[in-house]
Amino acid sequence: MKIHAYAAKEQGAKLEKITYNLPEIGKEEVDIKVHYCGICHSDLSMINNDWGMSQYPLVPGHEVVGEVIGFGTEVKGLKIGDKVGLGWYSASCMHCNQCLDGKQHLCGSAEATIVGRHGGFADAVRGHWSWVTPLPEGLDMAKAGPLFCGGITVFNPIVLSGVQPTDKVGVIGVGGLGHMAIKFLKAWGCEVIAFSSNPNKKEEILKMGAHSVIDSTKPEALESIAGSLNFILNTTNVSLDWNSFLTTLAPQGKLHTVGAVLEPMAIPAFSLIMGEKSVGGSPLGSIALTRKMLEFCVRHDIYPTVEEFKMDDVNKAIEHLEAGKARFRLVLKA
Amino acid sequence: MKIHAYAAKEQGAKLEKITYNLPEIGKEEVDIKVHYCGICHSDLSMINNDWGMSQYPLVPGHEVVGEVIGFGTEVKGLKIGDKVGLGWYSASCMHCNQCLDGKQHLCGSAEATIVGRHGGFADAVRGHWSWVTPLPEGLDMAKAGPLFCGGITVFNPIVLSGVQPTDKVGVIGVGGLGHMAIKFLKAWGCEVIAFSSNPNKKEEILKMGAHSVIDSTKPEALESIAGSLNFILNTTNVSLDWNSFLTTLAPQGKLHTVGAVLEPMAIPAFSLIMGEKSVGGSPLGSIALTRKMLEFCVRHDIYPTVEEFKMDDVNKAIEHLEAGKARFRLVLKA
Repeated sequence: MKIHAYAAKEQGAKLEKITYNLPEIGKEEVDIKVHYCGICHSDLSMINNDWGMSQYPLVPGHEVVGEVIGFGTEVKGLKIGDKVGLGWYSASCMHCNQCLDGKQHLCGSAEATIVGRHGGFADAVRGHWSWVTPLPEGLDMAKAGPLFCGGITVFNPIVLSGVQPTDKVGVIGVGGLGHMAIKFLKAWGCEVIAFSSNPNKKEEILKMGAHSVIDSTKPEALESIAGSLNFILNTTNVSLDWNSFLTTLAPQGKLHTVGAVLEPMAIPAFSLIMGEKSVGGSPLGSIALTRKMLEFCVRHDIYPTVEEFKMDDVNKAIEHLEAGKARFRLVLKA
Repeated sequence: MKIHAYAAKEQGAKLEKITYNLPEIGKEEVDIKVHYCGICHSDLSMINNDWGMSQYPLVPGHEVVGEVIGFGTEVKGLKIGDKVGLGWYSASCMHCNQCLDGKQHLCGSAEATIVGRHGGFADAVRGHWSWVTPLPEGLDMAKAGPLFCGGITVFNPIVLSGVQPTDKVGVIGVGGLGHMAIKFLKAWGCEVIAFSSNPNKKEEILKMGAHSVIDSTKPEALESIAGSLNFILNTTNVSLDWNSFLTTLAPQGKLHTVGAVLEPMAIPAFSLIMGEKSVGGSPLGSIALTRKMLEFCVRHDIYPTVEEFKMDDVNKAIEHLEAGKARFRLVLKA
């Protein structure tokens, strides 16, 4: 099968049209015709080889929504025409303890959609049947792409940390990830506080479902909610005064990061000990949880707030993202 | 009631005999005749005013085992002659969310046995009925004292962290706390690895129930168990290379500290994120969990390894502890 795609031919390059042939399909593989594909910061990191694992030409795109157009002989639960999504991972080993325990996203051999293979800024993309997720009835395909990476990344910690509808929670950073977290937590039944230092976003954040917005750069603002939060989700990549956030936690509160802050987090043991608090982190989420998240989205009409670009305008979209102008997540239409 | 006790009359002083009168007993209070009292490092810290909250004369002792000799009109569930224990806390507010939720040890108004009141290096000590814990049938009073502070401190994280009998676990530091953690975790059904850099303790540690002893000061020793542990309990107060220990954790593994390390712990976010790991801490434990721990000790014949001193030899005992010679916990016999 001949694929038309957009690729970076070298580190940091603008994307250019390329074509390539997909080899014969594997027994357990599925081909997906791309209808929409989200653009994630990780796509930029891969274009720029920030993590030293990029191979060029590199076709980004790992928030794919589309339909099944082909599959191997051993594929389970899918048929031609099924509407599906594909995220950061396209395959995992299926036989390690993590895979067998339903934690495929923690599989040591999981294969990323744009590492060593071509992603979704293309006509079509291929993945293992287990990671090709059927879309539930009623899901809006035009806005669903970002759920497959950003969405599940912030949905997973809510479940993992055992957040309850009776909880008071905080979200640090209201960008591509944070704004989805706010919508999920609002629908979860929680009292949601958004931590943002950008006053221009305030009205929009409240409209998303946050009950209040706090400027966390002001120490007195954090002091005013000391000891009250059961869960805080950090979606930023910057080093913060983590202890200030720990003091806003109630006893047994959890601070959870999905932002890969580069500098080690400075966590005073005493702050953990006195209130039985903890600090955790997580990537993405499991296959089953991704399915449950999609059902939750349909039930509560939750979608990322997206701006749509044509696939042919991919470079314009990337510039928009790089300029920090995305409100709040970008999607390419094939 | 006239009490004979040993007190530090000023910061860092040797203990001297003193006498004082207890005021009339409160409605919800219980008087305990002291049979045994453990000596904890916190007693030294309080004698030395390390935490700036000591009042002199100071009667240390918060690992009390004895019997009820008096109680107020509103006391519940206790009668004269009952064998009981009393630990770090002697009272809590009983009406905050933490107290009502069975987490009295996280009550913001909990009162410590030796802060602003006199402890168990004495004839008798007084506490609120809720914190005066009945001893289960068959518990050896001579060795039970240290369970009420050190014991519950390491037992609580096992329950709090959801440690399973199928887990592989590690204990950092084999002293007064660590040696009890090893015994608990062995009885819990886990595979137990002790991290100790003292080769002289190895035989004794294996006899306590550890399956192996690893010298964590050797990087290759930690590398050899990379990705294998579900739970690590740190019982030391020193700054360690926390990331090395995080790499020994299996996916979703938990590093938990009861050691109040002074320097903030340097925790790389990436290490948490990739394996859904977390870092937590805790103090002591709840009233109900203390009772369950005592039953567990009787069922599995678990006691701290203690050295006994006469109450009158308290200064000799303290010197022994300060010299780092305790193997592994000291108890005063009244």
